Amino acid sequence: MKIDPYQIRNDFPILSTKTPNGKNLVYLDNGASSQKPKSVIEATNRYYTEENANIHRGVYHLSQHATEMFEKTRIKTSHFFQAQCAKAIIFTRGTTESINLVAQTWGRVNISEGDEIVLSVQEHHSNLVPWQMLAQEKRAILKFIPIQEDSKYDLSGLKDIITKRTKLVAVSHMSNVTGTIHDVAPIIERARQVGAKVLLDGAQAASHLKVNLVSLDADFYAFSAHKMLGPTGVGVLFGKEEILEAMPPWMGGGDMIESVDLERSTYANLPAKLEAGTPNIAGVIGFSYALDYLSQLGMENIHAHEMEITEYALSRLNRMGGLTIYGTEDMEKRGGVISFTLDGVHPHDVGSILDEEGIAIRVGHHCCQPLMKRWSIPGTCRASFYLYNTKEDVDALVYGIEKVKSIFSRVARK
Amino acid sequence: MKIDPYQIRNDFPILSTKTPNGKNLVYLDNGASSQKPKSVIEATNRYYTEENANIHRGVYHLSQHATEMFEKTRIKTSHFFQAQCAKAIIFTRGTTESINLVAQTWGRVNISEGDEIVLSVQEHHSNLVPWQMLAQEKRAILKFIPIQEDSKYDLSGLKDIITKRTKLVAVSHMSNVTGTIHDVAPIIERARQVGAKVLLDGAQAASHLKVNLVSLDADFYAFSAHKMLGPTGVGVLFGKEEILEAMPPWMGGGDMIESVDLERSTYANLPAKLEAGTPNIAGVIGFSYALDYLSQLGMENIHAHEMEITEYALSRLNRMGGLTIYGTEDMEKRGGVISFTLDGVHPHDVGSILDEEGIAIRVGHHCCQPLMKRWSIPGTCRASFYLYNTKEDVDALVYGIEKVKSIFSRVARK
Repeated sequence: MKIDPYQIRNDFPILSTKTPNGKNLVYLDNGASSQKPKSVIEATNRYYTEENANIHRGVYHLSQHATEMFEKTRIKTSHFFQAQCAKAIIFTRGTTESINLVAQTWGRVNISEGDEIVLSVQEHHSNLVPWQMLAQEKRAILKFIPIQEDSKYDLSGLKDIITKRTKLVAVSHMSNVTGTIHDVAPIIERARQVGAKVLLDGAQAASHLKVNLVSLDADFYAFSAHKMLGPTGVGVLFGKEEILEAMPPWMGGGDMIESVDLERSTYANLPAKLEAGTPNIAGVIGFSYALDYLSQLGMENIHAHEMEITEYALSRLNRMGGLTIYGTEDMEKRGGVISFTLDGVHPHDVGSILDEEGIAIRVGHHCCQPLMKRWSIPGTCRASFYLYNTKEDVDALVYGIEKVKSIFSRVARK
Repeated sequence: MKIDPYQIRNDFPILSTKTPNGKNLVYLDNGASSQKPKSVIEATNRYYTEENANIHRGVYHLSQHATEMFEKTRIKTSHFFQAQCAKAIIFTRGTTESINLVAQTWGRVNISEGDEIVLSVQEHHSNLVPWQMLAQEKRAILKFIPIQEDSKYDLSGLKDIITKRTKLVAVSHMSNVTGTIHDVAPIIERARQVGAKVLLDGAQAASHLKVNLVSLDADFYAFSAHKMLGPTGVGVLFGKEEILEAMPPWMGGGDMIESVDLERSTYANLPAKLEAGTPNIAGVIGFSYALDYLSQLGMENIHAHEMEITEYALSRLNRMGGLTIYGTEDMEKRGGVISFTLDGVHPHDVGSILDEEGIAIRVGHHCCQPLMKRWSIPGTCRASFYLYNTKEDVDALVYGIEKVKSIFSRVARK
């Protein structure tokens, strides 16, 4: 099925709004957060209007109904990502919490002095800082998979990077800066050879690719609902059941216990063990409708549409002078993200001038300071596409960039 | 100003709904979660319909506007609770996360082998299990403030419980089981004498009492938005600025860093240091409207209304035979929570029969297993009131309990 973005846009009320200075909103910051379809907004609305109650501990109808909707979302999530089973799905606040959970439970138990944790040089801070903190605490060693000029992982030295000393490999499945879809299969295969576990940061991939957790065979997979049409404040940690079972709990509190005495407690089974306290009930239930929306369209179709838009955008941007585009030219290995810089113009200025035209892009280091330092730039401009973006959005972006160039060429002449 | 619950109910759409078997909803489970006024529901709706964008890192209008609304909520929260300053307000998922944050950052740094942590014997699991986990990790010692028969803290032995070996006192401000408003001033005073820090679990008190954080002088105060008319998935940790400043971060990721290299990072200032990753943006903004709603009515007025309902309920329940009511009779020291058991009837059965009448109460251990064990009961039935509850709600509860008694007396006769 071919995606019709014009029809889809009718489901996303924000895309018909105007900016304060009367421009049509051109939303190209999907890498940071996606917009929400009516069905998600209405589900949230309905929850608070008719269905709100705390879950898991109530015998009355509202509470049981809310519990059922919450737990059905867990099942739906496991089906959407073809996970082993529903209890392998842990709800968190977002990708960041999912990764920190692994670092602070699995990591604290399994990483000791001298052990090695392998990352890549282009990880988002959320898949870098937690491991720095753990490595510092445990006197473990961080090693980094380098990247090629085109931002793909450089796997030539993989055998020397992932060794018998490696306990964990934590890398991103798709780059939030360049959109590069990383070839993780050889990494996972090498990790298996040495007995290391693998965590994939799926914050971008989960929203834009068809992810099959069983065939992918990562031990942990982390992502956020708000980047895939869902509410803010909901994330997922997938973990292989036997690994999650063996992990100690992270937070203590209600729901994660079996029996509590003053001095000690026994802990509940999965998934409750890793979900202490009242969760973001409305958010998780809303996420269920986001998954439905994406399922109906099909992730492969969404990706195909994004690539059509991305190819169109690349063809137009490549024809502009003074523009540097980062990332691979191998269209099989990239998603709908384009990072670029404009000669002589700070990305912040590009973003501000585009904002005057109603165009929302992200500018800066994209939580990837080490990558920016490697490229010796303060940051990039990033346009990131999703199912509702159109070629007209790209045309608006190109028009906006022309305006930036025209303003700065006038400044330069003065 | 006297609260008019009949007028207030118009603002809470769920209170006009019917249960599946056609009964009016009588919602008496406010201790678990409160219902939401239209203004909160509409704010959430508006956010996703017109305002959604990721915060803190965008130069475009939507992102800056969302950031502004998010940060204004922090300021509003600090004013509502009369905190030192806005950066002493850390947004979390809920009370549970707030307490675990303190245990895992402040606690890990400041608690060593042999140090003592003082709790009470009636803490919610969320203010007990995190300290058990910390004590186990650090070989620290847990000590417990006992309670009197009427569930108030027994402060007679305080000097022997809180000593120079005490590093932290973590107790609840108001009991979720009995509604007892605890006399925390002598505890804080004693902690000050020995140089211990004090954390108050304010999950119940924040929603029902006027809390002044400066005059209360606790070092940490934890509570949840969803119990005080706000969205699910939002909590607050207040901490004294100088203590939060000295604490290491908990989760690593975006927003909490200043500068990141591959091997190490420097961390951002408060509050960002303790808020890694994309937060529950919609939830925090919705919480702002909950605070407005409560402010307009006044927390003292809300408490006065709850006590009017509670006194009426106690007077009616006390006249019923076969009922045991837990908690203090000192009306100055209790809030709108009534825990009771019915002779010869399991609380679960009481809850189920009341549910058939549309009456939502909570039954069970209320995440306070040690207290239930002390009382040698499997659990209680708990009715908990809020600003929108009426005397008719109490009448319905009494009618429902009569029905339970009648059913079980028939069963007994058979």
